[in-house]
Amino acid sequence: MKLTCNRDNLIEGINVVQKAVPSKSTLGILECILIEVGEEVRLTGNDNEFGIVYEVPGIIEEIGNLAVNSKTFGDIIRKLPDVYVSLETDDSGNLLITSGKAKYKLKVVTPENYPPVSFLSTENSIEIDSAVFQSMIRETSFAASQEDKRIILQGVFIEQKENEMRCVAIDGYRLAMKTAQMPEKNDYGVIVPTKILNEFARSLKATDEKIRFCCNANQIMFYTETFRMVSKLYKGDYIDYNRMIPKDFKTTVTIETKAFLSSIERASLVINDEKRFPVTLKIASNDTVTVSVVTEIGAINEEISCVVSGDELSIGFNVRNIIECLKVITDEKIVLSLSTPVSPCTITGDSDSSFTYLIMPIRTR
Amino acid sequence: MKLTCNRDNLIEGINVVQKAVPSKSTLGILECILIEVGEEVRLTGNDNEFGIVYEVPGIIEEIGNLAVNSKTFGDIIRKLPDVYVSLETDDSGNLLITSGKAKYKLKVVTPENYPPVSFLSTENSIEIDSAVFQSMIRETSFAASQEDKRIILQGVFIEQKENEMRCVAIDGYRLAMKTAQMPEKNDYGVIVPTKILNEFARSLKATDEKIRFCCNANQIMFYTETFRMVSKLYKGDYIDYNRMIPKDFKTTVTIETKAFLSSIERASLVINDEKRFPVTLKIASNDTVTVSVVTEIGAINEEISCVVSGDELSIGFNVRNIIECLKVITDEKIVLSLSTPVSPCTITGDSDSSFTYLIMPIRTR
Repeated sequence: MKLTCNRDNLIEGINVVQKAVPSKSTLGILECILIEVGEEVRLTGNDNEFGIVYEVPGIIEEIGNLAVNSKTFGDIIRKLPDVYVSLETDDSGNLLITSGKAKYKLKVVTPENYPPVSFLSTENSIEIDSAVFQSMIRETSFAASQEDKRIILQGVFIEQKENEMRCVAIDGYRLAMKTAQMPEKNDYGVIVPTKILNEFARSLKATDEKIRFCCNANQIMFYTETFRMVSKLYKGDYIDYNRMIPKDFKTTVTIETKAFLSSIERASLVINDEKRFPVTLKIASNDTVTVSVVTEIGAINEEISCVVSGDELSIGFNVRNIIECLKVITDEKIVLSLSTPVSPCTITGDSDSSFTYLIMPIRTR
Repeated sequence: MKLTCNRDNLIEGINVVQKAVPSKSTLGILECILIEVGEEVRLTGNDNEFGIVYEVPGIIEEIGNLAVNSKTFGDIIRKLPDVYVSLETDDSGNLLITSGKAKYKLKVVTPENYPPVSFLSTENSIEIDSAVFQSMIRETSFAASQEDKRIILQGVFIEQKENEMRCVAIDGYRLAMKTAQMPEKNDYGVIVPTKILNEFARSLKATDEKIRFCCNANQIMFYTETFRMVSKLYKGDYIDYNRMIPKDFKTTVTIETKAFLSSIERASLVINDEKRFPVTLKIASNDTVTVSVVTEIGAINEEISCVVSGDELSIGFNVRNIIECLKVITDEKIVLSLSTPVSPCTITGDSDSSFTYLIMPIRTR
C-alpha cells in the first residue's frame, strides 16, 4: 500500500468514521479504522450495529488494505507538521506515516477480520435538503427517551405520507414533531436510533447541500458524496402520535421565545429536585404569565408580558422538559395552547407551523 | 440588610470568593458565601485553610450580615435579567433578590458560625508588578509535585534575597525557577500551596497593575484593591535548590521553542506508558536533534535543525516533563545544556535569562 493525500482531508475522514469506532471493544479489531486502497482511498469505522465508510481523495501508487488503531492513528494525523501525508506499508507490514520531517512507524492489524459494512441498494433513495434534515433532527431528537424499556422510544420515527415527511420523538412526558414538504410522493416509516441521527447531522459539512437516504426492513443508509453511514433500525410499531395531540384548547398564550426561556431558566435555579418541584405558569387575562417555583432552598416569581386569549389557568411542568423544547425553537414567538391543569399543553411556532411540541403537565401543590 | 449593586460587579466578586468555597463540606456553613454589609459590601469564601474577602461597590440602605449557599446564590446572580440587583432581607430573615421583574426568595443561614478570615498586618508588605508575578507563577507552579509525601514539594517556594525575588518548584524529577529584580531589598522565604497561587493568578484583572503580599510564620496574604486572599503556608525547610543545578556542561543546543515542542508532542502520541517509554534526543554535531520514540504501538523519528556546540549525545526524558516545561516558555529560542546521558539537563532562555528548568534524564534501552 502506498499513497499520498492531503492531511486535512484525511483528518476530516477520520473525524467522521471515528463516530462509529467504539473506544473499547471486546473485539479488538473494532477499535481500528480500516484503510482500503483500491481505485480510491476508503476509511471505515464499524461497531457492527453502525458503520461508516468515507472516501478520501489521494494519489495512489500501490493498492492494499490494513487496519490500524483508531485513536493512535487519528491523534498522529491531527498533529502532523506538513499539509501532505504519505502512507506506506514496509516489508514487515508496518504502516509508515511521513509528513515533512516526521516519520512514524505504526503496528497494524491484518484487515481480514474487519467486519464489512453492507451497503443498501440506492435504487429507491430519497433526497432531502441538508439544512432541512438537520433542523428536523435537531428539533426532535432531544425529546426521544434515553432509557425507556420500549426501545422504539429511544429512536426518532421518520415517516413520509404523500408529500409530507415527518420526524417524531416521544418519551413518556413529551412529544416533538417536525414536518417538511417533499417534492416527490412516498410512503414509508422507520425508527432510527437517536444517536446515529445526531452523529449523521454532526458529520455534514456546509458544502453538503443535499443528502440522501434509503432503507430496507432492517437498516437505513444515509449518504453524501464523501461518506455512507449504515445503521440498524429499531423494530416495532411506532406510537399513534396523532391521537396524543388534542385538537381543541381553552387557552392560548403568544409569548416571546427568548424571554420565556430566560425566565424558565432563572426559575430552574432554585429547583434542586425537578421531579418533586415543578415550575408553575399562572396565565392571567391581563396578558401576563407569572413563572414561579417554590422549593426547600428558595422561591422565584417573575412576570412576563404575553398575549392571552381564553380562560385563566395555573399549570405546572417539569422544568427540563420545557427548557429543552424552548432551546431548539428558532421562531421568535411561540403559541402555548392549553385547556386544564391536567391536560397536555402544545407549543407551536407563531409564524412557523412546521413543528409541534406536546408536554404533559405535572400536578402543583 | 438592604443594598443595590451592579450585577456584573457582584458576579466578579462571587467568581473570586467561590474559589475558596468547597463544593462539599462536612461543615455546611463553609458551602456558603458570607455577605457582610456595613460601611461596605463584603463577600467572603473560606475553607478554613484558605479565605478570600472581596469588596463590591454598592448603595447601602441598611446594614446586616447573612450566609447563603454559594452555588445557588452564584447561579442566580449570573442569570439575572437586569444590570442592577437589589439584595434585601425580609421579616423572616430570607434573602430577597430583585432584578428587573424577577424576584427570588432564598433561605439563608445565620452568619454567627461562619469562620472569620484573619487578615495579616500589611505593615511590611511587598509590592510587585502584577504581570511579573503572574508569569512567575505560571512558569513555575506546574513543576510542583501533586502527590509527594513531602508536603513542601506541593508548594512553590517564594524567596527574596537582597533585590532578587525568586519562585522555585521541584518534584522528584524536575525543577522550575523564575527570577525577578525588585526595587526594594528584602529577605524572606515561604512555601505557598500551589493551588492558592494559581487561584490568585486567575483572580487578577487586567486593571490590577500592582499586587501586594505579606506574610508571617504561618500565613500569607495576597491583596489588590478589591480583594484579600489569605492562605496557610507549608512548614519546613525548602530544598537547597542551588546545589541541584550543575554549573558546567559538555554540550549546548540552541533550538526554536515551538518547533521543538511540536516535535516532542508528536513523539508523545506513540507513547502509551510514559514511565516505561522515554523520548530520546540524539544531538549530533551536524546541528540536528533527532527526536525518537519506540514503543509497543509504534515508532517515530523526526529531525530538527538547531545549533549544537560541544559533544554529541543521546539522552532520554519523560515526555510529559519536557512538554509541560516547553509550554510555559515564551522565549522564541531555548538553550539545552547537557553533559552525559545520566546527568541533569537544564533549559534556559536564549535571550531571557530569568528562568531555568532542570530535568532529570531517564535511561533509554
